[in-house]
Amino acid sequence: MSKNFRVPTMSLRIIATGGTFDKHYDPLTGNLFFQQSVLPAALRRARIAPQAEQDCVFEALLALDSLDMQDEHRDRIKQACLQSAQKRIVVVHGTDTMRETAAALAAAQLDKTIVLTGAMVPYLIDDSDAFFNLGFACAAAQLAQPGVYIAMNGQLFDWDNVQKNREQGRFETRR
Amino acid sequence: MSKNFRVPTMSLRIIATGGTFDKHYDPLTGNLFFQQSVLPAALRRARIAPQAEQDCVFEALLALDSLDMQDEHRDRIKQACLQSAQKRIVVVHGTDTMRETAAALAAAQLDKTIVLTGAMVPYLIDDSDAFFNLGFACAAAQLAQPGVYIAMNGQLFDWDNVQKNREQGRFETRR
Amino acid sequence: MSKNFRVPTMSLRIIATGGTFDKHYDPLTGNLFFQQSVLPAALRRARIAPQAEQDCVFEALLALDSLDMQDEHRDRIKQACLQSAQKRIVVVHGTDTMRETAAALAAAQLDKTIVLTGAMVPYLIDDSDAFFNLGFACAAAQLAQPGVYIAMNGQLFDWDNVQKNREQGRFETRR
Amino acid sequence: MSKNFRVPTMSLRIIATGGTFDKHYDPLTGNLFFQQSVLPAALRRARIAPQAEQDCVFEALLALDSLDMQDEHRDRIKQACLQSAQKRIVVVHGTDTMRETAAALAAAQLDKTIVLTGAMVPYLIDDSDAFFNLGFACAAAQLAQPGVYIAMNGQLFDWDNVQKNREQGRFETRR
Repeated sequence: MSKNFRVPTMSLRIIATGGTFDKHYDPLTGNLFFQQSVLPAALRRARIAPQAEQDCVFEALLALDSLDMQDEHRDRIKQACLQSAQKRIVVVHGTDTMRETAAALAAAQLDKTIVLTGAMVPYLIDDSDAFFNLGFACAAAQLAQPGVYIAMNGQLFDWDNVQKNREQGRFETRR
Repeated sequence: MSKNFRVPTMSLRIIATGGTFDKHYDPLTGNLFFQQSVLPAALRRARIAPQAEQDCVFEALLALDSLDMQDEHRDRIKQACLQSAQKRIVVVHGTDTMRETAAALAAAQLDKTIVLTGAMVPYLIDDSDAFFNLGFACAAAQLAQPGVYIAMNGQLFDWDNVQKNREQGRFETRR
Repeated sequence: MSKNFRVPTMSLRIIATGGTFDKHYDPLTGNLFFQQSVLPAALRRARIAPQAEQDCVFEALLALDSLDMQDEHRDRIKQACLQSAQKRIVVVHGTDTMRETAAALAAAQLDKTIVLTGAMVPYLIDDSDAFFNLGFACAAAQLAQPGVYIAMNGQLFDWDNVQKNREQGRFETRR
Repeated sequence: MSKNFRVPTMSLRIIATGGTFDKHYDPLTGNLFFQQSVLPAALRRARIAPQAEQDCVFEALLALDSLDMQDEHRDRIKQACLQSAQKRIVVVHGTDTMRETAAALAAAQLDKTIVLTGAMVPYLIDDSDAFFNLGFACAAAQLAQPGVYIAMNGQLFDWDNVQKNREQGRFETRR
């Protein structure tokens, strides 16, 4: 069955924009904040193979709470996707406005596979879902057809068929 | 572009067979060993949504070092895949003989998507790749065509086009 | 030298009052908050021996940011220390007003060894100092003379000879 | 009560000799082994204050399983303690022969406070007691009278009044 099917060679861009995934704890203020992205360390931990790394590009684009994300920021994400040499892209994003950014990217009609993911608990906090979500999104971006998707809770959603259930802290198919 | 494409609803079986991924530390002997699988806790941590969990079945089948895996064990994995109500399956397996088990599963010509994954560092040890790999495999199993695959190092490999590079501790395309 | 000296048998009370040490992350709001104290799990992890546990009592007294701690709360901590059957007491407390609580306890002139400790980074967040501080305070409470102390940064301070350096996020001898 | 008592300024030497505390996982072999000690990172995590660090010296002396520790190694530990400018010393050691090394150090009759500690679970493995034990030993070394001690399970033991209970994986007073 898999005879005539060949998995494509990895060629992936991972774009950090901030969000819960990438929050750090500031011991001086007691607040969560952004500093250098955790993603480069997370990708090393994932043991992405050296030869593959040539085609796995990390880009630290923004470091924002998704509630602070404005049209100009979405434009910058769109530009980054447009200019990406890689046609398969993971965007790490805050969960609150992930869908709005996905809509903006879908409107741009890029012929690329763009998977937005994030986390309900920061990567650096106990029991975080972030590292699983990153792995999930990296696979989805490599395998799904061109389009814009949201990957959360172990599921891939079409961008226009998902909503965040804020009471339960998870993403679900739109009703 | 994504208009006529709908991501399938999750329907996934995750089968534990042991391997580095699932090793624990025994404080009495100082050795690594198998006890209750870490996978149920890992899946909760991944925040797989309740309604989806109905279709995300976990099965603790074996708890073996992959070097100890014999034909009879591979038969049991094959049977588990054959009998699985879910057509999309993740098998968590030791890395040393992952390819041999994949070959046995491919020979069975099941009309299912089976993704074998594992870890270079146990889930419970610092800097482990396990949780990323699990996320990656869960996405790959939901998205790839029927066939048998190996997911490691952030890449999906066709089962017959991969080898473990033991000097570098990673999987790579066969030469 | 150690011939005529016998280390006393452990008899220790550990009192939780909240503070950074014990903060959890709330995935629904993105804020840090208090829920069930991490201390019972931390003490199990410390492998405090079963027979000793009879004399190692944990008390969940308060769950407050130390900035919210008022005189009435300090009275409750004082009462808890006064009524403690154990003469050696660790109080886990927020760092911002640790010194004020220590002063209130010192004023009570209890014939007990009371060691206040806390953390600059919550126990559940990456790279936390909390578990070290807890171990340090448990030893200090068992070994120091009656009095009130603050244990932070791997040092034991007399309560009236310490200040928090807020710019550097550490405790130091008063100048 | 604490009026006339002043906690001494920290002046501490921490000597690594190996043991479970300091074991790493080797992804290439699947075995636990020694490489660069985790202690410098652990001490930074403990946020030992900069000015204090001048008096908190770390020494990577040995990297041995305690079962491999011979008389010559114990001589080296004894020499390191003898030559230490700090009179308060923590020795991180494997648990299996901690008592034998303690006996050798006690026989040397050094006028120093030497606290041996270790871990039942390596620092880098989930649910490890190591960081607590390190904190405990750092306090005990600063506060106990000159002599040789073993710090495990949240208790300080005189070196000649402790035994490892191998069935239960803990240290206890000798019977």
